[in-house]
Amino acid sequence: QIHMDRLMRTIDKSADIGKLPCGGIRRLALTNEDKNMRDLYIRWLKNIDLEVRVDDFGNIYGRREGKNPNAAPVLIGSHLDTQPEGGRYDGILGVLAGLEVLTVLNESGIQTDRPIELINFTNEEGARFEPPILGAGGLSGHFDHQFVYSRTDREGKTFLDELKRIGYHGSKRNRIQNAYCYLELHIEQGPVLEHKNVDIGIVTGIQGMNWLEVKITGQSDHAGPTPMNMRKDALYAASKMIQMIKQTAVNFHHEATATVGRLSIKPNSINCVPGEVTFSVDIRHSHDTIKEQLTQLLIEKISVCAAAEKVSVQIDKIWESSATRFSESLINIIAENADKLGYSNQKMISGAGHDAKYMNRITPTAMIFVPSADGKSHCQEEFTTPQEIEKGANLLLKTVYQLANH
Amino acid sequence: QIHMDRLMRTIDKSADIGKLPCGGIRRLALTNEDKNMRDLYIRWLKNIDLEVRVDDFGNIYGRREGKNPNAAPVLIGSHLDTQPEGGRYDGILGVLAGLEVLTVLNESGIQTDRPIELINFTNEEGARFEPPILGAGGLSGHFDHQFVYSRTDREGKTFLDELKRIGYHGSKRNRIQNAYCYLELHIEQGPVLEHKNVDIGIVTGIQGMNWLEVKITGQSDHAGPTPMNMRKDALYAASKMIQMIKQTAVNFHHEATATVGRLSIKPNSINCVPGEVTFSVDIRHSHDTIKEQLTQLLIEKISVCAAAEKVSVQIDKIWESSATRFSESLINIIAENADKLGYSNQKMISGAGHDAKYMNRITPTAMIFVPSADGKSHCQEEFTTPQEIEKGANLLLKTVYQLANH
Ligand SMILES: NC(=O)NCCC(=O)O
Ligand SMILES: NC(=O)NCCC(=O)O
Repeated sequence: QIHMDRLMRTIDKSADIGKLPCGGIRRLALTNEDKNMRDLYIRWLKNIDLEVRVDDFGNIYGRREGKNPNAAPVLIGSHLDTQPEGGRYDGILGVLAGLEVLTVLNESGIQTDRPIELINFTNEEGARFEPPILGAGGLSGHFDHQFVYSRTDREGKTFLDELKRIGYHGSKRNRIQNAYCYLELHIEQGPVLEHKNVDIGIVTGIQGMNWLEVKITGQSDHAGPTPMNMRKDALYAASKMIQMIKQTAVNFHHEATATVGRLSIKPNSINCVPGEVTFSVDIRHSHDTIKEQLTQLLIEKISVCAAAEKVSVQIDKIWESSATRFSESLINIIAENADKLGYSNQKMISGAGHDAKYMNRITPTAMIFVPSADGKSHCQEEFTTPQEIEKGANLLLKTVYQLANH
Repeated sequence: QIHMDRLMRTIDKSADIGKLPCGGIRRLALTNEDKNMRDLYIRWLKNIDLEVRVDDFGNIYGRREGKNPNAAPVLIGSHLDTQPEGGRYDGILGVLAGLEVLTVLNESGIQTDRPIELINFTNEEGARFEPPILGAGGLSGHFDHQFVYSRTDREGKTFLDELKRIGYHGSKRNRIQNAYCYLELHIEQGPVLEHKNVDIGIVTGIQGMNWLEVKITGQSDHAGPTPMNMRKDALYAASKMIQMIKQTAVNFHHEATATVGRLSIKPNSINCVPGEVTFSVDIRHSHDTIKEQLTQLLIEKISVCAAAEKVSVQIDKIWESSATRFSESLINIIAENADKLGYSNQKMISGAGHDAKYMNRITPTAMIFVPSADGKSHCQEEFTTPQEIEKGANLLLKTVYQLANH
C-alpha cells in the first residue's frame, strides 16, 4: 500500500524547485532548476539505498537489486523537467510514484526476483530542446548521440554543453544493459477519464505527431507612411494561416488536432510593419495515414496562402513521430490488476508523447493514466486529486511487484 | 554649398555603430550603441568648435554663436536612435546634415546674426521606451519629467536609470531658453516623392496617431490531448482580430492605417495551446475625427471578437497624439527657397511622427522631406541617393542661413 502523505510531500517538495506564482513550475531541461531538482532527487534515491547511475544523455537510474541480479530488470520511469509554465504532475508523478513504490517495497522487507530500476529521463517536454523525449529517444537508439548532443535552445546553447554545465554528463556504460519491461504512470492531460468518471486509463498506444516550422518573409516597413495596399505584412499573412490551420484540422477529422503554439515576429516594434514571422504547427492523429494526409494538406494550403499574400514561405519538418502501440500482454496484466483492486478503468490512446513511446522500441511497454481535472495540462492549473493519484500508484505497485517476480 | 563626400562619410561612420548584416542599424535609445554614437557625435560637435550641452532628458545641443548672442536661436535637429532593425537615414540624416550645414558656415567664415543650435533628441523612435518622441516631448513640456523618467523597456529598465547608466543625464539648465524657429530635414519614409519624381517634400503637418495595447487571456493547455472544441486559444482569437483590424481600416478610409507591429505569446511552446497574447495596434489618419472614430470602432470590434472566441480582453490606450499643423510662414519660406534652387517640390502631410511634432508646441516649426527609395523605412533597406540628400541639405543650409539673419 502506497503512503499517500509521504508521496504528496515529495510532490510538494518538487514543486518548490522552479515554483511559479499560480502553483505551477518552470523547470526547463538542463537549466539550473533542473540541476537542483536532480541533486535533490539523487539524495532521495540514496536515502532508500538505491544504486545511482547517470548515463551519457543525463538519464538518472536508481536500481533496487533483485534476488537474481542477472535477471532483466523491471523499469519504471518518467521525467522531472517541465514546460515554461508547466504543472506539478506532468512527468513528475511517474518518477515520484516510482520512488514511493520502491520505498514501500523496502519497508515491507521484500526482495523481488528481478531487479527494479527507476528512471528519470532528460528533456521529455521538448520545450527547451526540440524535439521532445530526447533522453528516452537516445537510450532506445531512436536518436543518435550526434543528433541529441547538437540540439540547441533558442539562445543557441547546445544540449551537450548544458548537460556538462549542470554536471550530468554521465557515461554510456551506465545505460541499462537489458530490460524485462517498462511501465509509466502519468496524468492523462486530457478530459476523457474525468468526463466518464473512470479511475484509470490503460494506455494502448500514443498518437502520431508531426511538428512543422513555418517561416514567412514579407517586408518590414514604417507603420505610418506606408499605405495599406503597399504592404507585405508577414503577421497579417501568418494570421490568415493560423485561421486556416485550425479550420482545416477541424474539418479534416474530428479527432485530429493542429496547434500553433510558438510564434515570433521581427522586428517586433509597434511602428513597424512585421517583416518576418516564424511559427510552429503541432499536428496529431492516432492513425499515421490521417496525420500524414493532414500534414500534406496544411503544407499545401500554407503555400497557397503565402502566394496569395505575396510573402515567401519556408516550411521545415522538425519532428516526425509515428503512432505507437504498446504491449498487449502488459495491457492485459494492468487491466486485470485494476479490476482486482476494484478501480474502474478503460483502454485509451494517449494524445501526448511520453518516454514510454521510445522505450517501447526496446522492451515491452505500457502506461497507466490517472484523470486530469478539466483535462488541463501544460499549464499551472494542472491538477489530479490525491485519491486519484493513490489509485494509480497502488496499481503501479501491484503491477511492478507482480512483474518483478515473473 | 554642402560637401557631399564629407556628409556621406559621416553617415557611413554613424552606420558602423550598431551595424546590422544587411546595411541597417540597431541602435535603440539609451543602449550602449546609443552611448557610443553620442560620444562620437560630441567629438564631431567639438571639432567644429560648437559649445556642447546635455539637458535633463539627454537631448544634446551644439551651439554656434551669433553676432547677437541674446537673439533667439534658429534650431535644427532630429535623432540618432534607431528601430531594432532600422535604416541608416531615419533621423540620422537630419542631425548629420545639420552638422554639415554648421561646418560649411564655419568654413565660409560667416557669422550669422542669430545663434544656431543643432539638437540630437533622445528616444524619438519609441521602439525601446514607449511612446516615441520622449526627448522633444519632454523639452516642449508635452510630457512631464515624472512621465518620461518612469518609462520602462520590456526588461523593466527605466528611462532615467538607463540615461544615468550611459552618462547622459544632464541638467535642466542646459535646455534651450528661447527659440526663433525649428527646422528638421528627414527622409519621407513613404513612397509619394519617388512615385511623383519630386525632389523635395515640404511638410505641412503630421498625422494623428493612437497606440493601443491589447491583452487576450484564453487558457493554456496541452496541444495533444485537448480536443479542438475544448480550447480557448488566445493566438487563434488574436489572429481573427489581426484580420479584422486590417480590413476595418481599409474599409473605413482609404488613407487610414492600422498596424499590428508587436506581438508576444505565452507560454510560447510548440506543444502548448497559447494561453495569453499581447499585441499593439498603431492607428493613424491626418484628421483627428477619423482617427478617433476608427479607434473606437476597432476597440468595439476587438471586444466583440473576444466575446465570440470566449477569451477575455483588456485594451489600453498607450499613446494618443493629435494631428499637427506646421508654421505657414516657414512653409512658404522653404517653398520659395526650393524654387530658387530649382528643386521640384510639393507640400505633403507626414505619415510618421517626428521631433518637429512636439517642437511645434514651443516655436514655429517646419520640415523638409527627401525621397525614400521604394517608400521603405524602419527596415534595413531604407535608402536615399546622395543626389537627393544633397538637395535636401542645400535647401536646409539656404533656409537656416536666411532665418539666422532675419
Ligand atoms: N507528456 C507530454 O506532455 N510530453 C511532451 C510531448 C508532447 O508534446 O506530447
Ligand atoms: N520618424 C519616425 O519614424 N518616428 C517614429 C514615430 C512614428 O512611429 O511615427
